Parts: sequence; structure tokens; C-alpha cells
Amino acid sequence: MNLKVNGLDDLDLQILHILIKDSRTPFLEIARQCHVSGGTIHVRMKKMEDLGIIKGTKMIIDNSKLGYDVCCFIGIYLDKANTFKETLEQLKLIKEIVELHYTTGEYTIFIKVICKNIEDLQNLLMNKIQRVDGIQRTNTFISLYQPVDRNIELDIITKEQ
Amino acid sequence: MNLKVNGLDDLDLQILHILIKDSRTPFLEIARQCHVSGGTIHVRMKKMEDLGIIKGTKMIIDNSKLGYDVCCFIGIYLDKANTFKETLEQLKLIKEIVELHYTTGEYTIFIKVICKNIEDLQNLLMNKIQRVDGIQRTNTFISLYQPVDRNIELDIITKEQ
Amino acid sequence: MNLKVNGLDDLDLQILHILIKDSRTPFLEIARQCHVSGGTIHVRMKKMEDLGIIKGTKMIIDNSKLGYDVCCFIGIYLDKANTFKETLEQLKLIKEIVELHYTTGEYTIFIKVICKNIEDLQNLLMNKIQRVDGIQRTNTFISLYQPVDRNIELDIITKEQ
Amino acid sequence: MNLKVNGLDDLDLQILHILIKDSRTPFLEIARQCHVSGGTIHVRMKKMEDLGIIKGTKMIIDNSKLGYDVCCFIGIYLDKANTFKETLEQLKLIKEIVELHYTTGEYTIFIKVICKNIEDLQNLLMNKIQRVDGIQRTNTFISLYQPVDRNIELDIITKEQ
Amino acid sequence: MNLKVNGLDDLDLQILHILIKDSRTPFLEIARQCHVSGGTIHVRMKKMEDLGIIKGTKMIIDNSKLGYDVCCFIGIYLDKANTFKETLEQLKLIKEIVELHYTTGEYTIFIKVICKNIEDLQNLLMNKIQRVDGIQRTNTFISLYQPVDRNIELDIITKEQ
Amino acid sequence: MNLKVNGLDDLDLQILHILIKDSRTPFLEIARQCHVSGGTIHVRMKKMEDLGIIKGTKMIIDNSKLGYDVCCFIGIYLDKANTFKETLEQLKLIKEIVELHYTTGEYTIFIKVICKNIEDLQNLLMNKIQRVDGIQRTNTFISLYQPVDRNIELDIITKEQ
Amino acid sequence: MNLKVNGLDDLDLQILHILIKDSRTPFLEIARQCHVSGGTIHVRMKKMEDLGIIKGTKMIIDNSKLGYDVCCFIGIYLDKANTFKETLEQLKLIKEIVELHYTTGEYTIFIKVICKNIEDLQNLLMNKIQRVDGIQRTNTFISLYQPVDRNIELDIITKEQ
Amino acid sequence: MNLKVNGLDDLDLQILHILIKDSRTPFLEIARQCHVSGGTIHVRMKKMEDLGIIKGTKMIIDNSKLGYDVCCFIGIYLDKANTFKETLEQLKLIKEIVELHYTTGEYTIFIKVICKNIEDLQNLLMNKIQRVDGIQRTNTFISLYQPVDRNIELDIITKEQ
Repeated sequence: MNLKVNGLDDLDLQILHILIKDSRTPFLEIARQCHVSGGTIHVRMKKMEDLGIIKGTKMIIDNSKLGYDVCCFIGIYLDKANTFKETLEQLKLIKEIVELHYTTGEYTIFIKVICKNIEDLQNLLMNKIQRVDGIQRTNTFISLYQPVDRNIELDIITKEQ
Repeated sequence: MNLKVNGLDDLDLQILHILIKDSRTPFLEIARQCHVSGGTIHVRMKKMEDLGIIKGTKMIIDNSKLGYDVCCFIGIYLDKANTFKETLEQLKLIKEIVELHYTTGEYTIFIKVICKNIEDLQNLLMNKIQRVDGIQRTNTFISLYQPVDRNIELDIITKEQ
Repeated sequence: MNLKVNGLDDLDLQILHILIKDSRTPFLEIARQCHVSGGTIHVRMKKMEDLGIIKGTKMIIDNSKLGYDVCCFIGIYLDKANTFKETLEQLKLIKEIVELHYTTGEYTIFIKVICKNIEDLQNLLMNKIQRVDGIQRTNTFISLYQPVDRNIELDIITKEQ
Repeated sequence: MNLKVNGLDDLDLQILHILIKDSRTPFLEIARQCHVSGGTIHVRMKKMEDLGIIKGTKMIIDNSKLGYDVCCFIGIYLDKANTFKETLEQLKLIKEIVELHYTTGEYTIFIKVICKNIEDLQNLLMNKIQRVDGIQRTNTFISLYQPVDRNIELDIITKEQ
Repeated sequence: MNLKVNGLDDLDLQILHILIKDSRTPFLEIARQCHVSGGTIHVRMKKMEDLGIIKGTKMIIDNSKLGYDVCCFIGIYLDKANTFKETLEQLKLIKEIVELHYTTGEYTIFIKVICKNIEDLQNLLMNKIQRVDGIQRTNTFISLYQPVDRNIELDIITKEQ
Repeated sequence: MNLKVNGLDDLDLQILHILIKDSRTPFLEIARQCHVSGGTIHVRMKKMEDLGIIKGTKMIIDNSKLGYDVCCFIGIYLDKANTFKETLEQLKLIKEIVELHYTTGEYTIFIKVICKNIEDLQNLLMNKIQRVDGIQRTNTFISLYQPVDRNIELDIITKEQ
Repeated sequence: MNLKVNGLDDLDLQILHILIKDSRTPFLEIARQCHVSGGTIHVRMKKMEDLGIIKGTKMIIDNSKLGYDVCCFIGIYLDKANTFKETLEQLKLIKEIVELHYTTGEYTIFIKVICKNIEDLQNLLMNKIQRVDGIQRTNTFISLYQPVDRNIELDIITKEQ
Repeated sequence: MNLKVNGLDDLDLQILHILIKDSRTPFLEIARQCHVSGGTIHVRMKKMEDLGIIKGTKMIIDNSKLGYDVCCFIGIYLDKANTFKETLEQLKLIKEIVELHYTTGEYTIFIKVICKNIEDLQNLLMNKIQRVDGIQRTNTFISLYQPVDRNIELDIITKEQ
């Protein structure tokens, strides 16, 4: 049923599959695995980038090894529901916020932040996040341990092959 | 103060900085920007991989364009606190779970999941997550909109330059 | 004890019973089942409509087959308890709200909404509901699966017969 | 974009539109309004019933005029998440439950019940619902006032015309 | 509309009104105020006692002057909803519990207790209430100050006169 | 240890004990049971009234038999903590409130109300309580069943005898 | 009113007052300030220790300077209320717990812990606290900043002088 | 790994260890136990005071024996997150507050207070804490029983010896 997602064919999905596993795989190696020419890979990559399916690549870095030890989720309660957009613009400027979601459930805004340590988190909350207009209160969940961090596994690919 | 994190020098940090922005930058281009040889870049990359600082690269894919429309956070309440480890092992086997955190605050376990649609989420909750032993109940927050999704910005780099 | 609810007699209740099961039953068929004339059925229907007992009929449509996939309950917290009436008037204008209740318990207002999809729900919450004055925050419960959807069963009827 | 939902054409949607407003409209009257024959209406109705779009009709009754004064929503917390299906089967047998939803958020199961009065609700909770195996506790929200109770408005229809 | 509650006439309600204000009013004084004989008052009192309307009289005592300084409300969460009746029987035996309610909302059981002091409350919770089978946890609200403690005011009486 | 509470002797406590059981016991009967003269009883009663220990008597009425069917507890959240006193004055004027407590725990104010029915409760909440300035929201717990309603039992008495 | 707490006289309170300010004040210095002999101070100290008023002295150490950076409060929910005592005995053995309270409100047990860092806290929660039998779940509040940490100020002293 | 915390050597830690156990131990006795001269102890104490490791000493007093019977934790919800600092300054002036923490989790500010009795707590909450600007509401947890109150145990010491 998912075979023709957004006009992708089997070759496109096979390329995605290889790059999801290792985004640094050279195009010629991808070509070899797919039994097509390197030029074909370039054409397909270009198409998937144009369609907005491939948005880029990202280094996976061990934040704690660079001194970023604290990962938190923070649920944000707004003062009034209708000031959401102004609050959002201010939050976007805070660089420690790596994800920001507008969610169903108890919190209107739910963010993920990465800090160096507890002191850095105190500073972030007291001097940055809680200074943003329209925030009534926040609820911080510190991640003590994260045993799972992975991509979705494209089951459409494996069915193909 | 952070200049010498884990024995990294300015060149290492400069390389990281370039790759965090675009993980597909060719080594020769990195070398050119850093005014060193390509071989030096290989040596430094190897060192940072050996130190576990660089853990790999990751494609940034628009999940919704591949038919994965629903991103949720799920707080999990356990039946008894001391069955955490068994529950964790079972949760690891569920591929829709892309992050799993052991957290302070209301929930013992907090996960992030990516699903195709509401029906897929229903199936995930009823037939997979809530079947895991030791789970008392779950609280699901659906992300309706995610305006921020980015890496931490290494302020140690910018101070360097 | 309930035999004479609001001046209804056994015939009235028998008619109701038939129509609750199938509101399209022709009057002549109802008359046949009740052993009275079609004119009597018209008289009794008219009486029950005048009493406001029968308020109309309603098609039962499969909303998801018309593209309305998301059914939610939303608990609404007001900014101040005494602005309830103004908030209510504004909420009435939002057509996605199919039920609105003033409730005991945690929420002042509790609504049921029908949307096309998650994106439609995001738009409803961010651009319609949360723009209403006097709302502090909302808590959305998405119905993932609804195995029961039925009328009350009139036990006063069955006792009659 | 919604013009061709599930293979419906304009005539189908026009028929639905009329019946959503008044499900007792005679077929000949529908035919007159749509400028087609009564036979055509029968054919189209049959098709929409076969497609499962029209699932039936329902009397709209003033429950309080029949002595059913109390409408509640009840959030149900289960003892263990993995006993959901057994609990569901037992709840289905309780006739006062008119809606049952499996929901995201705080409660696993969320139901709507219609009772005669407070005493009837006490009996329902103590002797029926809370006797069901697998329920840890319930949270009841009584609807004190319901100013909105309506169908979704098919915006696909009005755009058509 | 309330004039004839349970077959009471104006004289009955007038008697109730006088006794609600001061339950020690002598019957002859009641008779004088109502312009009837003392015997009539006895007959009417007897009738209202037989109907269960008058259930007795109660001294109003200043508990704190007798050394009972702490008044609390305690919400009780049960382990499983279906053990309510057994738990209730055990709670009835604890004499510090002066009111016990089966409630809608967060708690299944909600009680009012009167204790001598904080130490007495500790003993009550740890050695009596929390020892009762079937209780998962309790939430205690201590009344720090009670500016209102009164009977309902019978508006049916005042309308009479 | 409690023998000499507020200068009361055994006779005082014995009198209290008799009156707590039945506040209408004639003074001569109390005298007979205590082996003292009726005059002594009057003297002791006067003393306990002067000390504020006996504050009066109260009819115990079956509210539901007079048409007051709904007993609720309502937790009140204030808009700002420092408007407590103004809010309190306005709440005192609402006659359906029979108890008002200033409490520790989740709610600042906690009240008990007696209403005729659900409709009366709706009116009380929407038109009286929630109109009071300074109230943010309320949480209503309806008492569905009250199996315990009694006085404290003076253990100081029984030890005496 | 508080002048004669537990048989203490003005001299006792003056000594306490001096020692509360600086527990290392030499006895001769206390004697000089109080215009009595050193022997008198010894006698009074002995009396207050015998009465259990003075329980000892305590170094005030900057925990963070010794590498203990994380101070948390942890609310503990028990599995069943009646296993409190067994759970308490096991918790007492965990040395990171510096305070343990049995509390009113949401949690049965409320503790204060001092840890070295986030990793140490993870270990404490996962391998020590949550392994204790009878604990259902915990809720951890990390203290990010503590601007107040002081003794009560004895107002009975200042009134004396 | 912790052997050289902040430049402390074994002798420093041994001295700390002795003083943590009994802060009144005479310096000569400490010297004797450590096999060094009294002068050395003075030098080391001075160093640890200068480093801010030793901040002073504190009498351990039985508050309840001085008439302070009530120990509470109070979670404070602010009106708006960005008024934290002003609220903090006002709270610092309230002498019953012995600890004040800025915390993650549900409450922005979390305090510990010591009061004489319930009446004193009522006065503290109503006339002091809740009068502070910026506080929306508070949640008070009364400590009914405190079986653990101790210092952290320096495991760095015991490993030394």
C-alpha cells in the first residue's frame, strides 16, 4: 500500500535505505549496491531533495563528551492560550532549545533542551525561558539515562526487497 | 574554560563546527577551510571517532513526506518501580520508539515515537506498548506542530574564532 | 414507577421504542406493529414533538469515510471563572465543536470535536479555540478507537411489554 | 480537494446534505430538490449505505424529558495497561454507557454515560462500572449544562454549490 | 413548587423552621408561636420523625475547646475499584471519621476526620486508615481555619410566610 | 491526661456525654442519671455555655427528604493568593455553602454545599460561586452516597467512668 | 506566653540564643555574656541536653565544594498504603537520604537526598530507591538553586531581653 | 577518584570526618586522633574555612521541645514565571522559612517552614506567604513524622582509611 509514497519508486527507497543507515556512504558505493550508475544516484538524490524528503544530514555527536551533560524535557504552561505565537517567537531565540513541539495534553508547548550542567540549567530556566512573556510556569523532566536514540526504520523498504 | 574539552584542540573543534553545519562536507573542503592538509583532517576525524565524540552521521528526512505523520511523546507509569529493567528490555524491541529516557518527574520512562497515522498509533499503544509487562498506564502527548528541530550550537567553537 | 413519564402512555412509549431502533420506519408500519391507525400515530408523534420529547432525527454517518478521521475531547481551563458566558458564545461559533458541556471536575468546559486530520486539529486549536478570549489552556484527549456508540435503551418500554 | 471523497459525486453529497439536515425527508422530496428521479435517489442511497457512509438514522430524543437527567463523562484508570481488552468486553455489556473511547492522555478508557439521577449514577458506578475487573479508579465529570449538541457541518457540500 | 414536599403542610414546615434555628425550643413555645396546641406540635413532630425527616438533634460543641484541634479532609485512592465495600466496612470502625462520602472526581472515598493534634493525625493515618486493606494512598487536606459552618436555610419556609 | 480539659470536672464531662448522645434529654433526666439536682445541671450547663464549649444544638434533618438531594465538596483555586479575604467575604453570602475551610493541599478554599438537584448545582456554580471575584476555577466532587455522618466520640468521658 | 517553655528560664534561653548563632562559642565566653560563672553554663547545658532540647552540634559544610552538587526532594508513592513501615526500614539504609518525612498531601513519603551529580542520582534512583519493595513510583524535584538555608529564629529569646 | 577534591589531602578529610561526627570536638582531641599537633589542626581548619568548605557550625535543637511542632514543605506556584526574583526577595524576609529552593518539577519555588502549631501555620500562610506578590497558589505538605534527619556521609573519608 505504501509502495508509491509521494511518487517514489523502489530505487528511490533503496537509496534512502542505504543513506539512513550511513549518510556518508559515497554515491559511487550507493550506485554499486543499487546496480545503477553514479549519475542516476545524483538524479534521484536531487529529486528527493527537491521533493523535500531529504532535508540534509546531521552529525551524531556525543553531547556529554563535549561537556553537555544535561538533557531535559520542559512542559510549558502559558498564561493565556492566545499568546502562543509571541511566546513561540521568543523561545526560538534560545539556542539551548533543540526541539519545540506544540502538543495535545497537559502542556501547550513542550521542549527538549541540552545544557552543560545543573548550574547551566538553572541559568537557562531562570534567566532565559522563564523571562519569556506569556509563560506561567514550567515543569522540567531531567533525562537521567537514555538507552534508546535511533531513527525510524523504513518498513516500506524492507517490504520492497 | 571549555577550550580543552576532552583533549580537543582548536582544529578539532573547527572541524566539528563545519561538520555539524553540513555533515556531507568533503574532507578536502574542510581541509581548505582549516588551512591544513586533507590527511590531517582524516587523522583528526579518526581521533574524534575513537574518542566517541563523533558517533556517526544521520540523514535528516521529512518523516511526514514518507507517510509518518504522527510524532508523540509518551509518559509511562510503571506498576512497581523495581521492574524497570525488564520493562525497558521489552520496550527496546518496539521499533516505533526512537528515543527512550529514564526521567525525574511524574513519569519513570518517557519515550518519543514516530507513527504513520492515528490508526498506527492506536495499534502501537494497544498492541505493543501497553502489552509490555510492568506498565500501569501511559499518557500520550501528540506533537501537532514542531517549529524547532536543531542541534546544540557549540559555543566553545565560536569563542575560539 | 416510570410508567407515566410526562404524561406518556404505553402507546407513546411503544412508538418511541420503534423509532429509536429505526427512525425511518414508515408511520403505517408503526401503526401496524402497534395495532392502531396511521392517523393515531400522527397524533401521538405530534404530541411528543410538541412536548419536546422528540426533537428530530439524525443521519448516522461514518465521519471517517467522509474524511473526518480525528475525534477528540478537549478540557478547557478558563483564565477566570467569571468569564464563562463570553467564552461560551465564542466557542459556539466554531463548527468543529459538536458537543459542549459545562462540567464538574477539573475542567470548566468540556468539548467534543470532529476534525479531518492532525493538521486540521492543529489549526483548530491554534487558530480557533485558543484564540477565544478567557481560555487559559486546554487539554486534548484524542479518541484512538471507539468501540461503543449507541443510544440509551429505554428500560421503561421493555417493562411495558 | 475533497470533491471526490470515496468516489462520491456532487449528487451524492447533495443528498447527504439534505438528509443530514432532516433524516426524515421523503425520497421524492429529495429527488425534487436535486432535479433527479426518485429512483436515482434510491440508487444513490443504496450505494452510500453499501459504502458504509450512511450507517442509519437516529431519533433525537430529549433524554431529560424521559427521566434521564444525568449525563457524565467518566475517565477510567486501569490496574495494568495490558488488561485493556478484557475490561472493554465487560464495559460493553453496561447499557448506560453510550460512548466508549480508547484515548490518548490521562485516561486509558473514556466513556459517556446517561443515567436517570444521582442515585442511578451511584448504582452504576458502585455496582456496575467499578465491579469490572481491571479498573483501578474512575474520575467522573458530570455535565451540568450542554449548550451545544450538533452534527459536523460538511464543508465539502457547501463548496460544491 | 416545593410547597408540598413529602406531604408536609405549612404548619410542619413552620415547626421545622423554628427547630432548625434552636432545637431546644420547648414544644409549648413552638405551639405558642404557631398558634396551635402543644398536642398538635407533638403529633406533627411524631409524623416528621416517622417520615424520617427529623432524624434527631445534635449538640454543637467547640471541638477545639475539648482538645480536638485538627479537622481534615482525606481523599482515598483505592487499590482496585471493586474492593470498595470491604474497605468501607473497615473504615466505618474508625471513630475519628465523622463523615464518609463515596464521590465523583479524583477520589473514590472522601472522609472528614477530627483529631486532637498533629501527632494524633499521624497515628490515625499510619496506624488506622492506611492499615485498612484496599487503600493505595491518601491525600490529606488540613483545615487551617473554618469561617463558615451552618445548616441549609429552608427557602421553602420563608416563601410560605 | 485529658481529665482536666479547660477546667472541666467529671460531672461536666458526664453531662456532655449524655447530651452528645441526645441533645433533647430533659435536665431532670440528666440530673437523675448523674445523681445530682436539676439545679446543678443548670449551673454546669451555664458554665459550659459561658466557656464556649457548648455552642448550641442542631436538628439533624434528612436533607434529601426536604428535596435537597445533592451534597458536594468544591475545591476552589484562586486567581492570586493575596485576594483570599475579599473572596471569602463574597462566598459567605452564598447560603448553599454550609461549610467553608481554608486548607493545606491543592485548594486554597474548600467548601461543602447542599443543593436541591443537578440543575440547582449548575445555577449555584455558574451564577453564584463562579461569579465571585478572584476565583480562577473550581473542582466539584459530588457525594453519591454517605454511609457515615456522626459526631466525634469523647474518649475522655468513657475513661472517666 | 512562651516564657516558661518546658521549665526553661531566661538564662537557659539566653544560652541557647548564643549557641544557635555560633555553636563553637567557648563556655567561658557564654558565661561572660550572661554574667554568670562558667560552671553555671555547664550545669545549664547539661540540663538542656538531659531534657533533649540540645541534641548536638553539626558542621555546616558546603556540600558542592566536596563534590556533592545535586540536592533533590523525592516524593514517593507506595504500592499499598499498609506497607509503609517495611518500606521505611529499607529506605533508612540508603545513606544519600538525609531527611525522610511521612507527609500529608500527595506523597506518603517525602525525602531529601544529596548526590554527587546527575549520574549519581540516576544510580541512586534506579539501583537503590526504586529497588525498595513497596514503592510504586517516585517524583523527583531537583533543587537548582537554594538562596535560603537557616535555623528558626527563637522569638521567645528576643522577647525576653 | 575523589581523593583530591578541591586540593584537600587525607589529613583535611580526616579532620572533616571527625568534626562532621561531633562539631564540638576540641582541637587538641582532633590533633591527638590525627597524630599531628594542635597548631596543624588550626592551620587546616583555617584553610578549609578560607576555601568555603567549612561554613560554620550549627546547634541541633529539638524544635518541638521549644514549642515548634509543625514542619511543612510548601510548593509555590507563581502567577507568571518572570516575576521570580521579586517574589524571592519578599519570601526571604519571612523568618519561618528555613529553606528555599528553586526547583525543577511542578513547583517553581519549594520551601521548608517551621511553625509553632496549626494556628501559627494558618497565620503564616494567610498573612505572610500568600500576601507576597506574584504567588498564585501554594500546596502545603505537613510532615507528620520524621524518622531520618542526618548529614551526608563522606564516602571519600572512609575510603581513605
